[in-house]
Amino acid sequence: MSEQVNIAVAGALGRMGRALAQVVEDDPRAHLAARFDRPGVEGEGLTDLAGALAAAQVILDFTTPEASVALAEKAAGRGGPALVIGSTGLSPDQIRRIATAAERIAIVRSGNYSLGVNLLMGLVRQAAAALPALDWDIEILETHHQRKVDAPSGTALMLGQAAADGRSVDLEKVAQRGRDGITGARRPGDIGFAVLRGGGVIGEHSVMFAGESETLTLTHTALDRGLFARGAVAAALWVADKGPGLYDMQDVLGMKDR
Amino acid sequence: MSEQVNIAVAGALGRMGRALAQVVEDDPRAHLAARFDRPGVEGEGLTDLAGALAAAQVILDFTTPEASVALAEKAAGRGGPALVIGSTGLSPDQIRRIATAAERIAIVRSGNYSLGVNLLMGLVRQAAAALPALDWDIEILETHHQRKVDAPSGTALMLGQAAADGRSVDLEKVAQRGRDGITGARRPGDIGFAVLRGGGVIGEHSVMFAGESETLTLTHTALDRGLFARGAVAAALWVADKGPGLYDMQDVLGMKDR
Amino acid sequence: MSEQVNIAVAGALGRMGRALAQVVEDDPRAHLAARFDRPGVEGEGLTDLAGALAAAQVILDFTTPEASVALAEKAAGRGGPALVIGSTGLSPDQIRRIATAAERIAIVRSGNYSLGVNLLMGLVRQAAAALPALDWDIEILETHHQRKVDAPSGTALMLGQAAADGRSVDLEKVAQRGRDGITGARRPGDIGFAVLRGGGVIGEHSVMFAGESETLTLTHTALDRGLFARGAVAAALWVADKGPGLYDMQDVLGMKDR
Amino acid sequence: MSEQVNIAVAGALGRMGRALAQVVEDDPRAHLAARFDRPGVEGEGLTDLAGALAAAQVILDFTTPEASVALAEKAAGRGGPALVIGSTGLSPDQIRRIATAAERIAIVRSGNYSLGVNLLMGLVRQAAAALPALDWDIEILETHHQRKVDAPSGTALMLGQAAADGRSVDLEKVAQRGRDGITGARRPGDIGFAVLRGGGVIGEHSVMFAGESETLTLTHTALDRGLFARGAVAAALWVADKGPGLYDMQDVLGMKDR
Repeated sequence: MSEQVNIAVAGALGRMGRALAQVVEDDPRAHLAARFDRPGVEGEGLTDLAGALAAAQVILDFTTPEASVALAEKAAGRGGPALVIGSTGLSPDQIRRIATAAERIAIVRSGNYSLGVNLLMGLVRQAAAALPALDWDIEILETHHQRKVDAPSGTALMLGQAAADGRSVDLEKVAQRGRDGITGARRPGDIGFAVLRGGGVIGEHSVMFAGESETLTLTHTALDRGLFARGAVAAALWVADKGPGLYDMQDVLGMKDR
Repeated sequence: MSEQVNIAVAGALGRMGRALAQVVEDDPRAHLAARFDRPGVEGEGLTDLAGALAAAQVILDFTTPEASVALAEKAAGRGGPALVIGSTGLSPDQIRRIATAAERIAIVRSGNYSLGVNLLMGLVRQAAAALPALDWDIEILETHHQRKVDAPSGTALMLGQAAADGRSVDLEKVAQRGRDGITGARRPGDIGFAVLRGGGVIGEHSVMFAGESETLTLTHTALDRGLFARGAVAAALWVADKGPGLYDMQDVLGMKDR
Repeated sequence: MSEQVNIAVAGALGRMGRALAQVVEDDPRAHLAARFDRPGVEGEGLTDLAGALAAAQVILDFTTPEASVALAEKAAGRGGPALVIGSTGLSPDQIRRIATAAERIAIVRSGNYSLGVNLLMGLVRQAAAALPALDWDIEILETHHQRKVDAPSGTALMLGQAAADGRSVDLEKVAQRGRDGITGARRPGDIGFAVLRGGGVIGEHSVMFAGESETLTLTHTALDRGLFARGAVAAALWVADKGPGLYDMQDVLGMKDR
Repeated sequence: MSEQVNIAVAGALGRMGRALAQVVEDDPRAHLAARFDRPGVEGEGLTDLAGALAAAQVILDFTTPEASVALAEKAAGRGGPALVIGSTGLSPDQIRRIATAAERIAIVRSGNYSLGVNLLMGLVRQAAAALPALDWDIEILETHHQRKVDAPSGTALMLGQAAADGRSVDLEKVAQRGRDGITGARRPGDIGFAVLRGGGVIGEHSVMFAGESETLTLTHTALDRGLFARGAVAAALWVADKGPGLYDMQDVLGMKDR
């Protein structure tokens, strides 16, 4: 079908590369145009980088900072394809080089490709801005499997940051964590965190806005570990017809002007 | 305190009038400047309309269409105070006359003063616009007490309308109600409704956006029947320093430009 | 109606006494046979103690330890009526004297008359006994209004005790409270507690049993502060035809032999 | 380790057989003693039936009615091992022959091996028996993925049956499904069903008991499709030291005498 977006997958032999390829193959709006991995690595059906650059409108790249920067500069040099970059741990210099590449091509870069979490972040910021802190208390609850070693989760803290941004306050000053014992009445303006751990729960996050007569609760639940691959493919479908620029998931969701 | 907003309550002897006066009295940001009812009706502490107009920066009016229109025109004629109107059942002509009054004074008018429900409506519209209908199913669940005689609730249908607006579709064509029996697989783009009834549940509404790997659920819960009075007072505090114009709860929440 | 149970209310002028009388009046299975208060206290429609003893099949007594003991001994001396005692803060000696009275009449005594909480306690104990601690993690979450000064709530701790009883372990040794920071993986057998505080939430308690592939969550929600009065009247209807004995809410629920 | 239970898996090459073997291998309390499939079928690491009978204390059999009956009679003839049978669609005669085999060996047979669902069923029956129908409304909500073609789910109907059993009423007469439009007030004693469909939700079931002042809600959530395999292995560990008899999941959970 000519309407399908041609998508290539970098790091195709890794766990995330395989997941990405699977989602692309299952999506009727996308065509898996190429799969490639590091030079010298061979595998069934793999092309090389040059073949992927030629075949794809968008390349999904969840590899390493070095590989992502090299790919971005290569693609920028030839005016395409667009990129969706999910590599983590980039240095400030690497981030700068990707931004420079994005002056010539369209690049989506994010540390978390879940559509739901990114949307939730935007909604939380708005709700926190709309509801006066004097009348509405914000509480964040997260639940994860028994193997998780830190609390609260990074995503819970990002949601807390979104709420603090909406209220224009410093999260450090209002975060209330590990509530236990004689706490006294809740301080107006605080943002509370609570944590549950158990079994195989993949991840659930809930932000409650509690007023005296009503509550509003925004909840994200991960159903399986494929949510990042699916979000990345959604980003690829979105970016395929975009001009040069550095985008993130708020752009993909159309939430930027809000 | 000079910073307090002087608020008067119309229909002060009615059930809603008493609830409004109570919320004003309990709120440190507000001062109950006057309470009045229909001409000829007497009660302890009541003033007359002229006294209320003179004393108040904002009048809360949850009375009848006729009384609200008369009040709006009186206030417009003297350039104030601002009004928060919650009367229901207005005719098109009455609505027009209130709009005309709002050219001279600030008026908030809404059919539902719950801050949470109004905010939820705005968030649902955005989420529905951001998440592609091909990948995300929308389902609306509402729970009310055993005495409710219709299903789904009016608020559930308003939430469905907000979701349909976000997707630019006609709710009538996509609403899926009363699912039962051999339904076949869910049609992409449908908006489903489900209904629970039991005990004394005041009212809970939930909008679920369900993707293949994640769900996002936005839930409003009424804790007591005072939520409308509280929302009206929040509207009064907001409108006190606004210029002439006709506003609704989306304005009060600062959601209009979204 | 002859099938109605004649119920009297002690301490009828207090807040709880008025709530109890209201529930009795609203219940078609019950008849408000008498209301009384301390000797010498007068009020509209009040009878004296002798009148209440003569008129009632069951007396609801939420007063003081001294008054409850005196009432129990008086009723025992004349072979009735039955009692539902909700006074708190009884000394061991006062408890013993009530037990002695219960050799002659039927007495229900409990520190918490919520049917839902008492039932939840029984279900939690069973679930904890049925699900092996090696495979199932127990987590308890409670949410209350912003004015509550201690955490976790007394009811949450009672639910933790019920879970610990079901597993025959010492709650003190397995309770995990105020989880925050680098906690390490969850220890098998722990019972976790988490706390949310916000707005006007009356009280919600949730016990989650989390396995690797499934979770079971038992949740109690208070809808209004009348739940204790309603539970007490349910106890009165239940005890009206019972023989002498000291009963609690597990008996009223028919959960004793479980 | 001598304390491990030796477990064999029938139908080892099928999807369920592979899932069962994986769970056995991952469980430190179990040892995968043998895997076998139909006579003539070969695969890596497979033994034959005789080898499995000799090696195992328990055989997990999720195959076909014919194969399960044959296995039960073979095992009964030699006095062991115990069986956990999950085959579905057995005829009355086949069920009878398995019952006869269970006079000589221990057999667990169930149509649903989820520990959580079976436990929920027992808790719902008790709660329904404990809470008077006049005061407590029962509502059942289920959510499944968008591909499910029938509503309500079989499990939801089983939960409705458990509630009806607890109240000693006929489910057919009190079931209220597909509520929509002008329904009138809720009839006391009804058991309501509501259905949500969306995305990739594996399966969630919720039974709400709603009183005027409180609600009790019991919720089961499937986290992944391995819950049946895990429950079957839990049944195998339980049955390993039991005497002859036909057991079900209520026995495994220790709920039979309740």
